[in-house]
Amino acid sequence: MNAASPLADWLALTMGDACGIGPEIIAKWWASERRDPQAFVVGCPDVMARALSWLPADRRPIVVRLNDWRDVARLTSCEMGVWAPPGLPPDLLQAPLGRVDRRAGQAAAACIREAVRLAQQGGVGAIVTAPLHKEALALAGEPYPGHTELLQAEGTPPGQPMAPVRMMLANRQLKTVLVTIHVSLRQAIEQVTFDAVLETLRISHRSATQWGLSRPRLAVAGLNPHAGEGGLFGDEEVRIIGPAIEAARAEGIDASGPWAPDTVFMRARHDPPAHEGEFDVVVAMYHDQGLIPVKYLGLDEGVNVTLGLPFVRTSPDHGTAFDLAGTGRADEGSFAEAAEMARLLLAGRQAAERVRASALSAAS
Amino acid sequence: MNAASPLADWLALTMGDACGIGPEIIAKWWASERRDPQAFVVGCPDVMARALSWLPADRRPIVVRLNDWRDVARLTSCEMGVWAPPGLPPDLLQAPLGRVDRRAGQAAAACIREAVRLAQQGGVGAIVTAPLHKEALALAGEPYPGHTELLQAEGTPPGQPMAPVRMMLANRQLKTVLVTIHVSLRQAIEQVTFDAVLETLRISHRSATQWGLSRPRLAVAGLNPHAGEGGLFGDEEVRIIGPAIEAARAEGIDASGPWAPDTVFMRARHDPPAHEGEFDVVVAMYHDQGLIPVKYLGLDEGVNVTLGLPFVRTSPDHGTAFDLAGTGRADEGSFAEAAEMARLLLAGRQAAERVRASALSAAS
Repeated sequence: MNAASPLADWLALTMGDACGIGPEIIAKWWASERRDPQAFVVGCPDVMARALSWLPADRRPIVVRLNDWRDVARLTSCEMGVWAPPGLPPDLLQAPLGRVDRRAGQAAAACIREAVRLAQQGGVGAIVTAPLHKEALALAGEPYPGHTELLQAEGTPPGQPMAPVRMMLANRQLKTVLVTIHVSLRQAIEQVTFDAVLETLRISHRSATQWGLSRPRLAVAGLNPHAGEGGLFGDEEVRIIGPAIEAARAEGIDASGPWAPDTVFMRARHDPPAHEGEFDVVVAMYHDQGLIPVKYLGLDEGVNVTLGLPFVRTSPDHGTAFDLAGTGRADEGSFAEAAEMARLLLAGRQAAERVRASALSAAS
Repeated sequence: MNAASPLADWLALTMGDACGIGPEIIAKWWASERRDPQAFVVGCPDVMARALSWLPADRRPIVVRLNDWRDVARLTSCEMGVWAPPGLPPDLLQAPLGRVDRRAGQAAAACIREAVRLAQQGGVGAIVTAPLHKEALALAGEPYPGHTELLQAEGTPPGQPMAPVRMMLANRQLKTVLVTIHVSLRQAIEQVTFDAVLETLRISHRSATQWGLSRPRLAVAGLNPHAGEGGLFGDEEVRIIGPAIEAARAEGIDASGPWAPDTVFMRARHDPPAHEGEFDVVVAMYHDQGLIPVKYLGLDEGVNVTLGLPFVRTSPDHGTAFDLAGTGRADEGSFAEAAEMARLLLAGRQAAERVRASALSAAS
């Protein structure tokens, strides 16, 4: 990310799977009061125009196909800038709504690749991704199962080893980073290793300091009930998680635990003034341990953030919802949260960069 | 439980570990506006008098040692009826506060045994148990690790096979029943069997109908992320949980699932009018899956209910808190919730019994 770029403050929104609800939640959000004025779409202008046509006429912006993405800053508030990536299938609009379609998978991947290029070469500050469909991606011959893996591959600068990334689920009350994600619970237990826990702590710490927290308080959940009760209900806390926390602390990271999983999320819940969270981030050992509390109060608040990338990336915490595509009933709430979270994280990164730059210039 | 008993509407409160916060949370609750007027203590009168002495003088009831527990209905609202069980150690008051002590373990077990006897022979409607300490229980030579196992053994009528029981955690928004409890996550996966899931569904259904729900809606969580995504992330849903749900449905139980664990608790959360729960009870596969969402909004609302016993039994969802014992800082909120839940479940059972009795008399 280049803070001096004219697009450093901009959000690039990838339209996601054209047959799902992605284009219409972007359209609804654009027409809502929560719209971020510094955002543009990376997608197919025709698909976006179709999604806009479902809005009431008086709230409908005009699609402007960008020939130079730097023109985006010159659009009015009635115009939606859309940047078409190379590789869009010409007959994308014929892919039926609500169905898995190869063309939609191909387009979704093309948008993500282009957004990453815009972030790395054009200096766009953050990417907000509308949902894609894993099967459509596979039909298009993509070797990556989902967003996270595709972003990880594309976001790694050429010639460098693949950066380790982690999935964070966040809402206004709770941020949780996962050590393991889409594997069976049996496999997740096997993947809870010293290295995986330590790396998660490093990534979480680095990301949180980039958002502007000077000394982020990281809580680590145990794997077993009561965090193993001293080895009585499993020994992963003693053998693996505890030593990884110690190693992180030796690196200056404010990590604590392993805490009893059933109460650590409640303790971290930040809902002032009634409830001040004790921790800034909870590191969870497996998918449901972290996602159950984040989702408990309602899906439309959940945001997925990929940590470890050289740019900010957020997404709503739901899928393509094929059953709702084209009905106008899709809710843009989670997308709005994702955009607001991207804005927040971006502002934090920029503030941290300014502090670093001024410290460097003062030192020189 | 005998609905015709003069004590059928009464709650017996066991004082728990005398060195923990049990006696004082009972005392604080008794002096609060949430006190249930039809309740008495099964415990040591001296220990209860000590706990009452920590209350402000103007809110302090007098301990009345009951010689006949049927006298309890004749006490005034300024009197706390205490029934001393046989087997209380004479020097219990000398057991130091905040420490694990054999005598406190012995007394706690004696109170529970006596409360079960009062429920079974005396017709007390419900038991609310203050926390005990597992180590103190073990020091006293008790063969049972905790409340649930002790109640299961004592609550089974002589000559009958041990009744299967299940732990339910509940607050005003969510009720969750656990298939497995205090074992490592690895062992929990092994204990998720067809029989264990089906039995949990039967117990949950039977209990919920006893509370007065005519057709309780039971949701079953999967074990793996996304409930296995069709076998992609683990096959327990296909091999075990799905078939157990089918078997329960064949018995007339309204069970559904296996649902994705990360959203099923959110879907069941009942917080009208903003959020109507889709289900009455969620069956969870392991301890933290069920307890994380119940505890997320705050410990003082959580209540532990033992299902499958012939009487109602609830308890607060916290331990002896030795660090707080005697300081006056222990919070009686969860105990108050436990007593209110016991009252609610008891009323439901009694209403259901009246319906059954009137149906029987109409049929005869």
